[in-house]
Amino acid sequence: MKNSQPNGLHFIFELFGCRQKEIDDIEFLKKVFKKSLEKSSAGILKKHFYKFNPQGVTGYVLLSASHISVHTWPEKKYAAFDVFTCSGKKETKRIFQNIIESINHKEIKLKKIKRGFSFIDKNNG
Amino acid sequence: MKNSQPNGLHFIFELFGCRQKEIDDIEFLKKVFKKSLEKSSAGILKKHFYKFNPQGVTGYVLLSASHISVHTWPEKKYAAFDVFTCSGKKETKRIFQNIIESINHKEIKLKKIKRGFSFIDKNNG
Repeated sequence: MKNSQPNGLHFIFELFGCRQKEIDDIEFLKKVFKKSLEKSSAGILKKHFYKFNPQGVTGYVLLSASHISVHTWPEKKYAAFDVFTCSGKKETKRIFQNIIESINHKEIKLKKIKRGFSFIDKNNG
Repeated sequence: MKNSQPNGLHFIFELFGCRQKEIDDIEFLKKVFKKSLEKSSAGILKKHFYKFNPQGVTGYVLLSASHISVHTWPEKKYAAFDVFTCSGKKETKRIFQNIIESINHKEIKLKKIKRGFSFIDKNNG
């Protein structure tokens, strides 16, 4: 597989007030990630999910254009997500939208970070 | 395995002016990550590295306390890293320091992001 261009957009977001059962359900979270990538142009290189004892799930999907990840703390009704892709702004947004529409929550905190753009544009062409 | 506390510190950093051969060397990058986690209290749940054709490496280590990742573009002498842990500020810094000391580079861009702290402290105790 060929690498993508190093023009990354990284959405870091936290969901608060989630349903405990939902974010403790490893199969549910696998499905959410699968669905969020359905229309994606990014190739899936590897995925892995893990269920903690007594609670909590952690998982990631390694993409040809970076990665997406989830770490959940059901006891706090809290989940932390990363969507880092190099396949364009629209795609990053679509994956992000798919995830937040699939998971019940009361509040969201989102940070958008451009990666690789500025320095490369100015100094390497 | 038991989940960590949801008090995360996420270092997002980019290295510029890297040596092309070094950041195109999958075995080298595996060793850098292995070494960076040697004194870590975080359990390693899964790791996966992939070498692109003709160039570039992407890799991910899923930890009991979140994750570390690397995506490299040797043709731009550029590499993007994430160190997201929930095992304390010192540990996040140690892993970060280990990585940047192991990889030749000319410039670094670093963002430090607290995750999970503020909302949880104020609203959920």
